[in-house]
Amino acid sequence: MFSQTDFVHMERALALAKRGMYTTDPNPRVGCVLVRNGEVIGEGYTQPAGQDHAEIRALKDARSRGHDLRGATAYVTLEPCSHFGRTPPCANALIEAQIGRVIAAMEDPNPQVSGRGLAMLREAGIEVRCGLLANEARELNIGFVSRMTRGRPWVRMKVAASLDGRTGLPSGESQWITSAAARADGHAWRARASAILTGIGTVREDNPRMTVRAVDTPRQPHRVLIDSQLDVPLDAQILAGAPTLIFCGELDARLEERAVALRERGAEIVPLPNAFGKVDLPRMLSVLGERNVNELHVEAGYKLNGSLLREGCVDELLVYLAPSLLGMDSMSMFNLDSPDLLEDRVKLNFHTVERIGDDLRILARFAPTAVPGTDAVSPTVSK
Amino acid sequence: MFSQTDFVHMERALALAKRGMYTTDPNPRVGCVLVRNGEVIGEGYTQPAGQDHAEIRALKDARSRGHDLRGATAYVTLEPCSHFGRTPPCANALIEAQIGRVIAAMEDPNPQVSGRGLAMLREAGIEVRCGLLANEARELNIGFVSRMTRGRPWVRMKVAASLDGRTGLPSGESQWITSAAARADGHAWRARASAILTGIGTVREDNPRMTVRAVDTPRQPHRVLIDSQLDVPLDAQILAGAPTLIFCGELDARLEERAVALRERGAEIVPLPNAFGKVDLPRMLSVLGERNVNELHVEAGYKLNGSLLREGCVDELLVYLAPSLLGMDSMSMFNLDSPDLLEDRVKLNFHTVERIGDDLRILARFAPTAVPGTDAVSPTVSK
Repeated sequence: MFSQTDFVHMERALALAKRGMYTTDPNPRVGCVLVRNGEVIGEGYTQPAGQDHAEIRALKDARSRGHDLRGATAYVTLEPCSHFGRTPPCANALIEAQIGRVIAAMEDPNPQVSGRGLAMLREAGIEVRCGLLANEARELNIGFVSRMTRGRPWVRMKVAASLDGRTGLPSGESQWITSAAARADGHAWRARASAILTGIGTVREDNPRMTVRAVDTPRQPHRVLIDSQLDVPLDAQILAGAPTLIFCGELDARLEERAVALRERGAEIVPLPNAFGKVDLPRMLSVLGERNVNELHVEAGYKLNGSLLREGCVDELLVYLAPSLLGMDSMSMFNLDSPDLLEDRVKLNFHTVERIGDDLRILARFAPTAVPGTDAVSPTVSK
Repeated sequence: MFSQTDFVHMERALALAKRGMYTTDPNPRVGCVLVRNGEVIGEGYTQPAGQDHAEIRALKDARSRGHDLRGATAYVTLEPCSHFGRTPPCANALIEAQIGRVIAAMEDPNPQVSGRGLAMLREAGIEVRCGLLANEARELNIGFVSRMTRGRPWVRMKVAASLDGRTGLPSGESQWITSAAARADGHAWRARASAILTGIGTVREDNPRMTVRAVDTPRQPHRVLIDSQLDVPLDAQILAGAPTLIFCGELDARLEERAVALRERGAEIVPLPNAFGKVDLPRMLSVLGERNVNELHVEAGYKLNGSLLREGCVDELLVYLAPSLLGMDSMSMFNLDSPDLLEDRVKLNFHTVERIGDDLRILARFAPTAVPGTDAVSPTVSK
C-alpha cells in the first residue's frame, strides 16, 4: 500500500512528466520527484531525446541546491532505465547517489527490459515499490506503451462533426464546423503525436499543411500521407517543409516517375501494397512502430477513416461534436457499412468527455481496457 | 444583494420543489422554506393540482410543530399566487400568518398576474425581494414558463443515437442502442412531462405504449399521437388505458368512420390540417398549450422529428449518445435537408452533458437564452 504522501509526490511527478508532452518523443514522458525527510529536494522531467532523463534532471536539481541525496526517496513515473542508450542508465545514477527508496508508477512497458531497472536498484539495496498511479502513468505514455507492447503506435483518429454526426455539407464545405477553441485543442493533440496521418482525399479537398500551429511547440510531428497512386500534387502544402512520408501501393514503372519527382520535393516513398493495390494499413502501423512512432494522430476523410476502422487500425476516436445539425444529405464520419444485426455494431466506450468552448470533445476507445498491456486498477490510499 | 444564508435556504426550497417533479402538473413545481431567527421552522412543496401549494404546506408544517410564524422569512421558488384558483391565494395565507419577509426566486411568469402576489405582500407591510436563483427556478418550471409566456409547451425531443449519429440499422433494428440506465433516465424525462408525443410511423414500427414504467410515478403523462390519416390500428398499445389525443388532418367523410371507431377505443380526435393535408404542428402546440401542457416530450421517428424541427416546434434536444458506430447506411436522427451554406446550419447550444451509465446524455437547446422569458443572470453572493 502507498501513503497519502506517496500519492501527492507521484501526482507531482506526473505533472512534471506532462511538461515533456510535446518534446520527449520518441522517448516516454517521465517525471521524477526527490524527497528527503518530507522535503522535496529535487524535481525533473525528461528532456528532448539525447538529453537528460527525468531522474538525472532531478538529481542535478537537488545537487545544485546543495541537498544531501543519501537515503532520499525517488518518485518516478516510469521504471528507471537500465541500459545505455543515448544516455547512461538512470538506475546507475540513482544507485550512485545513494537514494534510499524508489517508488515507480509503472514498469518499463518494453517486455525486453521490463523490471530490469527495478531489479538493479533492489540489488543495490534500495527499497523499491511499483504500481502507484499506474493507470495515470500509462495514459501519459499510451503511445510508447503501445509501441513497446504491440510494436505499433497508439492510433487516435480525430473527427469534427455536428450533433447529428455529419462532417461536412453536400457542397463539400466542412471547415469551421467546430469553434476556434476546439480547433486549438485539436492542435494540442497534434502536438503530442509523433506523427500526423492523412489521406490523398483530404489533400485534394483541403490541401492542409498538417502542422501544429495553434499551440506553441518546439517540435513538429512527422507527416504521413496515404496515397496509393502517388496522386499528391507536387505543390501540395503537405510536402512543404520537413520531409513527408508517403505510403503508396505497388511502385510500378508507371509510378516511378512520380516517385522521383516527389523525392525531389523531399518526400520519402514507401510502397506497401495490399492485395487490392491499396496501402496495407496494418503493415503500415508496423512500419511506423519500427520508426519510433508512439502516438499516431489521424485527420482524414470518411473514406480513409472507414478503411482504418474496418482494418482494426484505430485505438481511439477523438470526436469534437459541434452544437449544430447539418442534415441527412451531409457527409458521414466514416465510410463504414452498417451491420445486419445490432449486436454486430462497432462497440466503443466513452473514455473522457469535456466541453471545449461551445463544443464537446469525446474520447472514445475500442479496447475494453483503458490502456494496452494492462487492466490494473490503481491502488487505494492506506489510511 | 442576497446573503449566503439566503442562498442556502433558497437552494433548499428548490430541492423541495423538485419533489413535485412528477406530480404538480399542470401547476408549477414550487418549494417553500420558512425561517425564523435562523432556524428552519417549516418546509413544503406543491401537492398535486387542487391540493395545497408549497406555501400552505410550509405554514401547516410550522404550525404543526408549534412554531410562532410572526416575523419569519418565507423563501419561495415562485411568486406566491394572488388569485383564487382551485385553492385560496397563498399571498393571503402568508399575510394572515404575519410573515415578516418574503424572498421569491422569480415572479409569476403569467404576464396577466405577474407581480400581483408580491404587490399584495408589500401592501401588507411585508418586506419582499425577488430574483434569488431565478434561473434555477425557471429551469425547474421551464414548461410552465413557456406556456405562460408563449402559450405553447416547452418541447423536448428525445433521440437515442450512436456516436456516428444513427438511430437504427437499415433493417429497422433500433431498440437497445443505448443502455438500460439511459432508457431509465429517458423514462424520468417522460415522467416530468405533461404529455408524450409520437407519430404514426413509430406506432407502426415499434407499437410503443408511451407510458412511464422505469421510474416510479403516481401520474402518467397524457399521450398525443400525430396521425394525419388516422391509420393507427385499433389494437395499438398507445390506445390502451387512458385516453389518447390524436391529431389528424382533414376529418373528411372517408376518415369519419375511423374516427368513430377510435373514439370508441377512448381516443380523442382533433383535426388540425395544414395546407398539405398534414397536421399543422405549430397550431397543435397552441392547442396543447390551451390544454395546460407544460412540457411536451417527443419520441418519434426521423420523419416527424424532421418536420417538428423544420417547423420551429422544438425547444431542446435530449440526445442519448451510445458508445458505438452503426455505419453510414443506418437511420439518421432527423429528416432534415442539408443547407447549401454552413452558416445556414441549424445552430444549438449544449446546455448540459452528463454520463448516464455507458452513454452520454446531451441537452441541446435552440434558443440563444437558456429559458424563455429571460436572459437574466443569477445574482452573486454578497460577502
